[in-house]
Amino acid sequence: MSRFCSPSIKNVTPYTPGEQIDDLHLIKLNTNENPFSPSPLVLDALKDEMTNGSLHLYPDPESQALKKCIADYYEIVPEQVFLGNGSDEVLAHTFLSFFKQNSPLLFPDITYSFYTSYCSLYGIDYKKVPLQNYKINIGDYKQTNGGIIFPNPNAPTGSILTVSEIEKLLSINTESIFVVDEAYVDFGGESSVRLIDKYPNLLVIQTLSKSRSLAGMRVGFAMGNSKLINTLNSVKNSFNSYPIDRLSSVAAIAAFQDKDYFNENRQLIINNREWLKKSLLELNFEVLPSEANFLFVSHPKFNNGLQLTMKLREKNILVRHFNAFPIERFLRISIGTQQQCTYLVESLKEIMFYRHKNPAIAE
Amino acid sequence: MSRFCSPSIKNVTPYTPGEQIDDLHLIKLNTNENPFSPSPLVLDALKDEMTNGSLHLYPDPESQALKKCIADYYEIVPEQVFLGNGSDEVLAHTFLSFFKQNSPLLFPDITYSFYTSYCSLYGIDYKKVPLQNYKINIGDYKQTNGGIIFPNPNAPTGSILTVSEIEKLLSINTESIFVVDEAYVDFGGESSVRLIDKYPNLLVIQTLSKSRSLAGMRVGFAMGNSKLINTLNSVKNSFNSYPIDRLSSVAAIAAFQDKDYFNENRQLIINNREWLKKSLLELNFEVLPSEANFLFVSHPKFNNGLQLTMKLREKNILVRHFNAFPIERFLRISIGTQQQCTYLVESLKEIMFYRHKNPAIAE
Repeated sequence: MSRFCSPSIKNVTPYTPGEQIDDLHLIKLNTNENPFSPSPLVLDALKDEMTNGSLHLYPDPESQALKKCIADYYEIVPEQVFLGNGSDEVLAHTFLSFFKQNSPLLFPDITYSFYTSYCSLYGIDYKKVPLQNYKINIGDYKQTNGGIIFPNPNAPTGSILTVSEIEKLLSINTESIFVVDEAYVDFGGESSVRLIDKYPNLLVIQTLSKSRSLAGMRVGFAMGNSKLINTLNSVKNSFNSYPIDRLSSVAAIAAFQDKDYFNENRQLIINNREWLKKSLLELNFEVLPSEANFLFVSHPKFNNGLQLTMKLREKNILVRHFNAFPIERFLRISIGTQQQCTYLVESLKEIMFYRHKNPAIAE
Repeated sequence: MSRFCSPSIKNVTPYTPGEQIDDLHLIKLNTNENPFSPSPLVLDALKDEMTNGSLHLYPDPESQALKKCIADYYEIVPEQVFLGNGSDEVLAHTFLSFFKQNSPLLFPDITYSFYTSYCSLYGIDYKKVPLQNYKINIGDYKQTNGGIIFPNPNAPTGSILTVSEIEKLLSINTESIFVVDEAYVDFGGESSVRLIDKYPNLLVIQTLSKSRSLAGMRVGFAMGNSKLINTLNSVKNSFNSYPIDRLSSVAAIAAFQDKDYFNENRQLIINNREWLKKSLLELNFEVLPSEANFLFVSHPKFNNGLQLTMKLREKNILVRHFNAFPIERFLRISIGTQQQCTYLVESLKEIMFYRHKNPAIAE
């Protein structure tokens, strides 16, 4: 860190994203992207916006058209929608806006590792709540806190809570902000957005990077009581007036409008997940229950997932490994196309078979 | 502000951008955009990226291709380049990274009003240094400070300092970060980037929103010593891993590559500025010297620029007025096409002429 830096940021611990390589020979199952390109309507909208000759002009700083589109989709009002440059930016503004309190923020011990980076950036006190059998136990969050956040489904485990379980906690946790991070909710979960009118301290965060195939365009959003949204807007307007560019905005609108494409693709991903889960179980993998577009798996022959990650890499397959206790034996595998999933299973069979026939070499 | 907000952000004072209206009937001279569309090479690059089918994949979190392009352009190395979602985001990360110090940050009393918003967001102590005759007097910054920042050319005044004047201050201000905000430098100024190898505490910030016609795509950057850039990267990677989307990245690269288009357009804008200045002087306006793509002007018949702003609005012309002492009599007028500038001057003549013939009505 530069000797000129502000003392408060001396010890920031940046987040490390999964490897991003633009190599079409690689099968990229390491960062939970959607394996399908965005809807053709997205490409049409992009072409229209490009050719209307306005790229030299600032976008609408409030992105009103996109807010209205999301509000219509979820049957809320635009004043209940906040937008950001990916849900990571939405989370960053949320942490600064609500979680710098006297009591610690609560989140799971095994969860999205960006949460601790936000805390180190803004000097937020936090307490990790242990998962029970790799699942969030909602009762464990009934304790003094300056805020609560978890992904639902949780990442990287994939397990989900029902909306009624979440409401149980909301009904007694009334004095701090409760954020449900729904990056993966479209792959089998139910959104808690229907609770925002009832609970003024609930914020639901989603992204267009997963179920809507727009990771390359950076759009995320939060939904909640308009007073919470106003607070987020005050922080955003003290940081960057125009986070959503013209092309991202029209791409996001088109992605929401093409409901058929969205529903067909997420169903394909769910089907592929269930097929992959069955195939991995047959190979003697442990597979945690997942309602997300990834599986969190381990194999009794590999004490550390890094070994298997490296072997898959030799076969041009990227998966994610977290070198952190107590999940170092796991791999997180994003759900790809049927072809990609099949190639993965065949590759794993080769690795396992080779190990079986050549135990001295394999290891 | 929501009752749930973090105490530290209770009193944030958000920046208010100029009005953004997508109405082709309006002549938009209020937010210093470039009146010309981006280079045709930008549109080609966008089409290529759209059709290569990768929008569902995350962009390169380090935007290495764009960093290399900017580094080549300025004859520096990619490790000396930091990128953000517009220069506003680059400024936000800069304020948090370097300016939260025990001594106050120094900036001009009349300058980019976003600076005070960043300070309120991050709790940064600052001291405004008065302009002298609407110009920055570099000697006034020789005082204890936790950092120095000003735009060069300054906004909204348009006046410029030479690189040798800036170097004089750098040579004695060695213990805090000195940021030169060069949003408008391509319209007649000289960049201080050639000093970054010599001064490890110099950061030069630029944008593609003005001279490169990409306000709608949100790309800004900082250049400085690699240790400063590392610090900015640590903060950025604790905030949002992927601030530059796939389309913004290729658009920015193409905008840098088409040097002829860039040079022709900025020369047209400089020519239009000088023509507009001459025309306004003939109408008895006071016109401050400007090396930017705007003019800061007042007229003896209008004590408050708001009156004239409203009269121009009736003629479908938007200009910017700041309702703040001591610049309330001024208008900031962005330089448009020759046609737009001509229409502005004709409209002003009508307003003045009407006032002259009907003194009882006008005012």
